[in-house]
Amino acid sequence: MVVATQSLEELCINSIRFLAIDAVEKAKSGHPGLPMGAAPMAFTLWDKFLKFNPKNPSWVNRDRFVLSAGHGSMLQYALLHLFGYDSVSIEDIKQFRQWGSKTPGHPENFETAGIEVTTGPLGQGICNGVGLAMAEAHLAATYNKPDCTLIDHYTYVILGDGCNMEGVSGEACSLAGHLGLGKLIALYDDNHISIDGDTSVSFTEDVGKRFEAYGWQVLVVPDGDTNLDAIAKAIEEAKACTDKPTMIKVRTTIGFGSPNKANTAGVHGAALGGDEVKLTRENLGWNYDPFVVPEDARAHFNKSIERGAAAEAEWQKVWESYKSSYPEEAAQFDRQINYRLPDGWEKCLPTYTPEDKPLATRQTSEKTLNAIANAVPELIGGSADLTHSNLTQLKGFADFQKGSYHGRNLRFGVREHGMAAICNGIYLHKTGLIPYGATFLVFVDYMRGAVRLSALAETQVIYVLTHDSIALGEDGPTHQPVETLASLRAIPNLLTFRPADGNETSGAYKVAVERRTTSSVMAMSRQALPQLAGSSIEGVARGGYILSDSGDLPDIILIATGSEVSLCVEAANKLRGEGHKVRVISMPCVDLFEEQDAAYRNAILPKETKKRLVVEAASSFGWHKYAGDEGDIISIDRFGVSAPGGIAMEKFGFTVDNVYNRAKALLA
Amino acid sequence: MVVATQSLEELCINSIRFLAIDAVEKAKSGHPGLPMGAAPMAFTLWDKFLKFNPKNPSWVNRDRFVLSAGHGSMLQYALLHLFGYDSVSIEDIKQFRQWGSKTPGHPENFETAGIEVTTGPLGQGICNGVGLAMAEAHLAATYNKPDCTLIDHYTYVILGDGCNMEGVSGEACSLAGHLGLGKLIALYDDNHISIDGDTSVSFTEDVGKRFEAYGWQVLVVPDGDTNLDAIAKAIEEAKACTDKPTMIKVRTTIGFGSPNKANTAGVHGAALGGDEVKLTRENLGWNYDPFVVPEDARAHFNKSIERGAAAEAEWQKVWESYKSSYPEEAAQFDRQINYRLPDGWEKCLPTYTPEDKPLATRQTSEKTLNAIANAVPELIGGSADLTHSNLTQLKGFADFQKGSYHGRNLRFGVREHGMAAICNGIYLHKTGLIPYGATFLVFVDYMRGAVRLSALAETQVIYVLTHDSIALGEDGPTHQPVETLASLRAIPNLLTFRPADGNETSGAYKVAVERRTTSSVMAMSRQALPQLAGSSIEGVARGGYILSDSGDLPDIILIATGSEVSLCVEAANKLRGEGHKVRVISMPCVDLFEEQDAAYRNAILPKETKKRLVVEAASSFGWHKYAGDEGDIISIDRFGVSAPGGIAMEKFGFTVDNVYNRAKALLA
Repeated sequence: MVVATQSLEELCINSIRFLAIDAVEKAKSGHPGLPMGAAPMAFTLWDKFLKFNPKNPSWVNRDRFVLSAGHGSMLQYALLHLFGYDSVSIEDIKQFRQWGSKTPGHPENFETAGIEVTTGPLGQGICNGVGLAMAEAHLAATYNKPDCTLIDHYTYVILGDGCNMEGVSGEACSLAGHLGLGKLIALYDDNHISIDGDTSVSFTEDVGKRFEAYGWQVLVVPDGDTNLDAIAKAIEEAKACTDKPTMIKVRTTIGFGSPNKANTAGVHGAALGGDEVKLTRENLGWNYDPFVVPEDARAHFNKSIERGAAAEAEWQKVWESYKSSYPEEAAQFDRQINYRLPDGWEKCLPTYTPEDKPLATRQTSEKTLNAIANAVPELIGGSADLTHSNLTQLKGFADFQKGSYHGRNLRFGVREHGMAAICNGIYLHKTGLIPYGATFLVFVDYMRGAVRLSALAETQVIYVLTHDSIALGEDGPTHQPVETLASLRAIPNLLTFRPADGNETSGAYKVAVERRTTSSVMAMSRQALPQLAGSSIEGVARGGYILSDSGDLPDIILIATGSEVSLCVEAANKLRGEGHKVRVISMPCVDLFEEQDAAYRNAILPKETKKRLVVEAASSFGWHKYAGDEGDIISIDRFGVSAPGGIAMEKFGFTVDNVYNRAKALLA
Repeated sequence: MVVATQSLEELCINSIRFLAIDAVEKAKSGHPGLPMGAAPMAFTLWDKFLKFNPKNPSWVNRDRFVLSAGHGSMLQYALLHLFGYDSVSIEDIKQFRQWGSKTPGHPENFETAGIEVTTGPLGQGICNGVGLAMAEAHLAATYNKPDCTLIDHYTYVILGDGCNMEGVSGEACSLAGHLGLGKLIALYDDNHISIDGDTSVSFTEDVGKRFEAYGWQVLVVPDGDTNLDAIAKAIEEAKACTDKPTMIKVRTTIGFGSPNKANTAGVHGAALGGDEVKLTRENLGWNYDPFVVPEDARAHFNKSIERGAAAEAEWQKVWESYKSSYPEEAAQFDRQINYRLPDGWEKCLPTYTPEDKPLATRQTSEKTLNAIANAVPELIGGSADLTHSNLTQLKGFADFQKGSYHGRNLRFGVREHGMAAICNGIYLHKTGLIPYGATFLVFVDYMRGAVRLSALAETQVIYVLTHDSIALGEDGPTHQPVETLASLRAIPNLLTFRPADGNETSGAYKVAVERRTTSSVMAMSRQALPQLAGSSIEGVARGGYILSDSGDLPDIILIATGSEVSLCVEAANKLRGEGHKVRVISMPCVDLFEEQDAAYRNAILPKETKKRLVVEAASSFGWHKYAGDEGDIISIDRFGVSAPGGIAMEKFGFTVDNVYNRAKALLA
């Protein structure tokens, strides 16, 4: 037994450790190593620095805490429980990793109050942290007044070796350094162990030097297992540095306290086992039963409740003063953070008639984005270095840069994955901001790890993804999406839009702005498309709708999206001229169409009409559901080719004649 | 006019520049800026250092050259043309970016001899370069003898700001530094311009310092537009450093020579325009018509032909000597680099009977991988820090580390995207190596940018992706693939396998090893699965096959993959007991089934049988093609949940009873 008596701090830290040990042991599943090693830094941070009100987890000016090393979820659940959050009871901790519990295997913001972001996939949390810090900086620059500081909080992130090996963290941290986000503080749980063993097998770079190269302040705590003062001092130093983010390298021991498993990969992701738990209890002098928190520790942790209430009460005074001094800004702030859109905002959406000139949907997207930017001040975003190809510049608004955080044009650089993860973070600040990020559609592959989390974590990010088919032309197959639309439609809780014209573009953005817990993809054409008769904002809201019809039950139904809709319209006219009853369905969002009730879906796509032709310049994968057993699909089930876009489209069969011919073959 | 007379070097460099300028101008599409700025470093490299034989682009001991900034493809086409490759004629250059040309928008290894890797998606090329250098190191360590150096070449990469902003390059370069790949030399075209303008808007980190942190040697050429000696000196210094990769930061001017567009984003990705082309000709003193190469330059470039032939002849002598001194190794080397597998290698594949104990397919994968490793020495790979979860260790073989490059166990660290791009590079060394990379199935999202290039560039990478469904359990929805299988099946030229047991695992690996220009995904279970009666290696080769049948035309067909096949087998037995004629189809690879002829497909899945039930613990997306209009699908069209795997499967309906009930409902 190493310790006979424990200081109050030790008692508290060991309370965290043993909740993690015991919960993992009971579940026979989980990751005890990180909570055991990171408990001292986490306790110091939460006890001495973190500003939060456990009884109001959504207090707007709270510090944000992110556990980027999400596998250590029991650390976060133990903190939430001990520091007074009602969302995690001791019963919840006993239910760790069980069906229906509030304590899932990795932290999920949509399950557990007090969890800011969903982590587990490594590297995402630190990027979310960059987004949270950007949101804070933006709101502070937008709303704070010389006499009234409404928003002023830190974002703290605990991350591990895994997070630092992932490229996505490098992307976001490079940008954070560029932006000089002084209120972002990352604690690096530097324990030299990853799942495969000692990090020396694959990770021997100088992480601190790399972060210095990014423009961060880097501090080191060499004895993070025991030296709470050094941890506190480093955090103070980090807070004092206002023009750079700070990384604190805290040298720790994974599984601290376990006599046989500390400092080994064995303690990373598996329960200690009964014998080792017993030995760890002895080693740390812990004479308490599983899930028991000593009275003294409880009493100390509980002080956070009063402290938190006082902090929020203090802020409420500021808010009252702000409301009386700046009623207009206050009203906007209140509206925004409560997720109410400006009344009548949707009137800003452009509409078009067939007489209007053809435009690429990336152009109608540009008009729509700019219209929304003026009507909805919470819209903020930018491109991964393709601003003038994606057409995502908000005209008349500043760049978001160091010294101009009020700007709403974000400059992500060529960092798609970081961009998406940052957008998730901006949204998850939960102050009403609607972030958008842009690149070419095909490069959504680079950021799919974060896009999946947009969907899972129920964020509202608008992905503006232009150059949506082989029609982009000469850049060739590396740049031409083929399977991309299918791969996005397969993701739950993500809306993939492919508008056919200007009205459908407005319709897509209307849904994207109004759905506050769903992210959207805007697949936009590079090439000009005609403004169609019958297209509508309302139609888009149903996902698929009748664009033109012969009346009665159609002989054949043509189903298309985006740039192929106009081909179907023309082919339909030709077919009608020959006496066929033809319906054209525009299907800008399959996901929304799936959400409609059966009556609507059947009215649009009557079961009786078996002759159906789907036309999309992309993979057929997923379309047989609508084409049906007797239908046909004009698609591209191979990679594209470098050639002028018009020629590529023609060679792959995306012409009015081919649509007409394939329809005739079905009708024969 | 700046220059009246030009040195021979200037003449050569301007020949490169104007081929690029004129080709882009003719195509009215492309990226002239990079070739104009990087021509001096590229010329110096190719003229003074690069070891190649233009008349035999596949000479095994050639230096590898990668244009990671693939948008500057005209630089590479100009180099290939001028330095004597037959694959790019002046006519081909005039056909730049046209349908069917050998000069597509971005370099494609499968289109143009002399192009080593497909680039365009930024950051991939430098990672491929790391893989090429690893392949070289591995072959050298495996085959070279003290008196006979068979493999000894450099890998050179030109990369730009975009490549350096992408996280994937950071992942691979960190690993390259760890591995001390001294024969990897990267020339960083440091022109301070990206598409959005000056890099100061988003990219102000100290790139050199970052690479030093990775363990690279970093050299600087401050005047790379003009100082050819400094470029040459730096390359010499890079070659002299044998224990570290080198990055040479070459400060250049994008669009060098264009009076009005040099050093602007305007010259990055658009033709100069007729007027500016004229002014650039004047400015650089270029009095030649479009596509004309001056005689003196031609004569100089042509020396590369003789030089290359001599270099290869020299190597042939070494090879002859090697063959006589080391006939066994020579035979293996010859077999391997000519893509002949060892005779009878497939006899190593494990087979199973229903009496054998249940095993997770990640376990049968481990047995199979290890069996193949012993029979097929060209198998090399590893995991992104999940070795003991993915079960991908090759037992009895060393780690590939600095000082032990003969090792075949790669340690990628938590760098999925880098891993996949490196595997592409190892394959594209085109010396017969079969690389594999492993992680959890869901994290294929992190590396999808590179997996797409595996498919497009026709590489042979085996992706071992375990924990293939919600049955992985407690780790929860961040770790549970749902849409992932669909998203992979949608990719052309990629085989996605989900074996049901040990025999199917062997069958999947058999195809994966024998298909030398197709990459494969192995989706493997975490949980144990029974060894099925009727499963076979041969069946897998057809993609889908009859596992059990009642004979004649079935009343109902049950279609399943992986862990759900055994549920269907049991449900089928129950249904047969009630007199129904039931067929069970195991469909371990939908892509291969699609490749079969119509007769086979119809024999397996007769049109007459409309009652079909598909069972897969994943998204239904894509399955309606096989379920048909009257079929049903047991699937998961939402995200998963954290709970023990067995409970999750039961709650989501993956039980024999539910399969039976849903089948009965179809039969009613």
